[in-house]
Amino acid sequence: MATVTVLGAGMMGSAFCLPAIDNGHEVRLVGTHLDGEVVASLRDGGDHPKLKYPLPAQLSVYPIEELDVAMKGVDIIGVGVSSQGVRWAGHALGPYVSPEIPMVMITKGLEWNGDKFLLMPDVLSDALPLAMRGDVKPCAIAGPCIAGELARREQTCVVLTGREQGHLDRVTSVFATPYYHIFPSSDVVGVEVCAALKNAYALAIAFSSGIHEGRGGAPGSVAMHNYESAVFAQAALEMQQVVTLLGGEVTTVLGLPGVGDLDVTCNGGRTGRFGRWLGTGLSVPAAIEKMEGATLECIDIIRVFCGAFEAMSKQGRLGQKDLPMMRHLGEVVLGHKPLSMPFAKFFKPLSGEQER
Amino acid sequence: MATVTVLGAGMMGSAFCLPAIDNGHEVRLVGTHLDGEVVASLRDGGDHPKLKYPLPAQLSVYPIEELDVAMKGVDIIGVGVSSQGVRWAGHALGPYVSPEIPMVMITKGLEWNGDKFLLMPDVLSDALPLAMRGDVKPCAIAGPCIAGELARREQTCVVLTGREQGHLDRVTSVFATPYYHIFPSSDVVGVEVCAALKNAYALAIAFSSGIHEGRGGAPGSVAMHNYESAVFAQAALEMQQVVTLLGGEVTTVLGLPGVGDLDVTCNGGRTGRFGRWLGTGLSVPAAIEKMEGATLECIDIIRVFCGAFEAMSKQGRLGQKDLPMMRHLGEVVLGHKPLSMPFAKFFKPLSGEQER
Repeated sequence: MATVTVLGAGMMGSAFCLPAIDNGHEVRLVGTHLDGEVVASLRDGGDHPKLKYPLPAQLSVYPIEELDVAMKGVDIIGVGVSSQGVRWAGHALGPYVSPEIPMVMITKGLEWNGDKFLLMPDVLSDALPLAMRGDVKPCAIAGPCIAGELARREQTCVVLTGREQGHLDRVTSVFATPYYHIFPSSDVVGVEVCAALKNAYALAIAFSSGIHEGRGGAPGSVAMHNYESAVFAQAALEMQQVVTLLGGEVTTVLGLPGVGDLDVTCNGGRTGRFGRWLGTGLSVPAAIEKMEGATLECIDIIRVFCGAFEAMSKQGRLGQKDLPMMRHLGEVVLGHKPLSMPFAKFFKPLSGEQER
Repeated sequence: MATVTVLGAGMMGSAFCLPAIDNGHEVRLVGTHLDGEVVASLRDGGDHPKLKYPLPAQLSVYPIEELDVAMKGVDIIGVGVSSQGVRWAGHALGPYVSPEIPMVMITKGLEWNGDKFLLMPDVLSDALPLAMRGDVKPCAIAGPCIAGELARREQTCVVLTGREQGHLDRVTSVFATPYYHIFPSSDVVGVEVCAALKNAYALAIAFSSGIHEGRGGAPGSVAMHNYESAVFAQAALEMQQVVTLLGGEVTTVLGLPGVGDLDVTCNGGRTGRFGRWLGTGLSVPAAIEKMEGATLECIDIIRVFCGAFEAMSKQGRLGQKDLPMMRHLGEVVLGHKPLSMPFAKFFKPLSGEQER
């Protein structure tokens, strides 16, 4: 039996505990300073207030102040904080990590440091104590997983990637269940880049149903699905172009972390709702207001990417016409320009590819 | 101004006339012996009975008996018959074709001749008069296009592929409009294989919403989207594996003919409805009955593929465990076995790829 401690009691961090509990392991969930309500409700025997669903009684729940207790004898550390919280998590977990203890991240995101993109496992690693940085290599989970469905033990397939095979094997043996299928991937870059990009592109895919709705159209088989699916295809192409540019693999885009996660994000999440609001013609601030405070990762990732474009062009890695949909997302979401999908610019190779 | 004659007055053949009409060309639509009701209604100035929508008054409509008139002075021939009708169309059009007249197919499908797969343009070409066979090279359109949306001039992006660049340019100049975007592809094999396969895989993607519905679940963000998107990802992977095996390109799977068309087929069509019925637990005959006579291309393509597996294994091109989802579709749809998605077998390379 292993002892697993997960930091971050949001929907995904909490749901992620289930497979390990069902495999008979001791699982401890630690809420951050943002999770006070969750910790209180779960300790009272209530539902998880965001999942709106109970978690198994075997789960031990701790506030961040009791992190020390929750880390005693830990065998696997899970990191389920938001992307903005990853550096904080690295500092908080610093005293407890070692190269022998696998760390597994379910946080998704990407940072641009002015010169290159940083993957979440690298951001976490960089925030660990100096003596550990080179030796602790966090692994990461990605793929189509709505937390509320995992909490209900619905069939779910994810990818686990990382640079320490022993850790991947250990995490898989602790977490894989007949409903939680874990597939290995050696493509850390591709998996992490897809996991981040999918939020931006799911926003674009959601526009058409909002436009249709805004014009008074009824849902159904004749709506604006041609628009939606053309955007889906361009999203897959741009994800492939970015992944390839950053050194990842095409097959990752064709799998769970790419088109799989893109599909689920359109179906299940806040990103889709936000995109529909924009499609109906609401301004960005008005659409944000409709979302009632929900985290909108899509805006972060569009900001990161569009912020990197200029430097990447100067580095000779991107042309001005490359990734036209991401650029248009920047115009709409950051520049507050009207939505007008640039279909005629779609389905082109990257300018660097044409020169070759 | 060009004269365009389209054979086949089904939903897609009829909607395909619109872009050329809007570009000011003379367009003639010829109904087959299956399209009597359509021809009568359109000639009476009524709606297209299947599109439930009017077509422009400029469109000339002919019954098959007047094919000779409709072919007078033709510059481009469109073929919009069903896949079962392609050989018949080749015979019927034989007297009118020449290497100078572009033929463009919107029919999707694939045949297995016991030794190899035949693409629709090749099936058509083979049915032309002997003297023409080598010289007439039909081009083909694929990608996410619900006919009812094209008829309403909704934004639509498609791919045009073929082996005669001059023909591709000519067809594009006649049909491309601000709402009908045509992108070129040199990957005839990849485009045609994706166009055929997507019907089979869209069926699988639809299962989960039927299962959820069958258990009394309400639609919404917490349903069985994880299952659905894992199936979507495996579908994309199997399409890539088949396309690569048959000599097509990975980027085609990542574009309009692959994931784009797969996405629209899930959203818009009969295949999705049929898959949902099967997911609720209906037997195959009962689900077919619910479809009230609608053509189910998915069954044809599953039969073609599962029928080819044994020979392909003997040829050493496929292993027994390759393409597990297509095999399970065969078990369910042809073998009437219970639906039980084999997730644990997913996301593996083809056995031939592992040996390399």
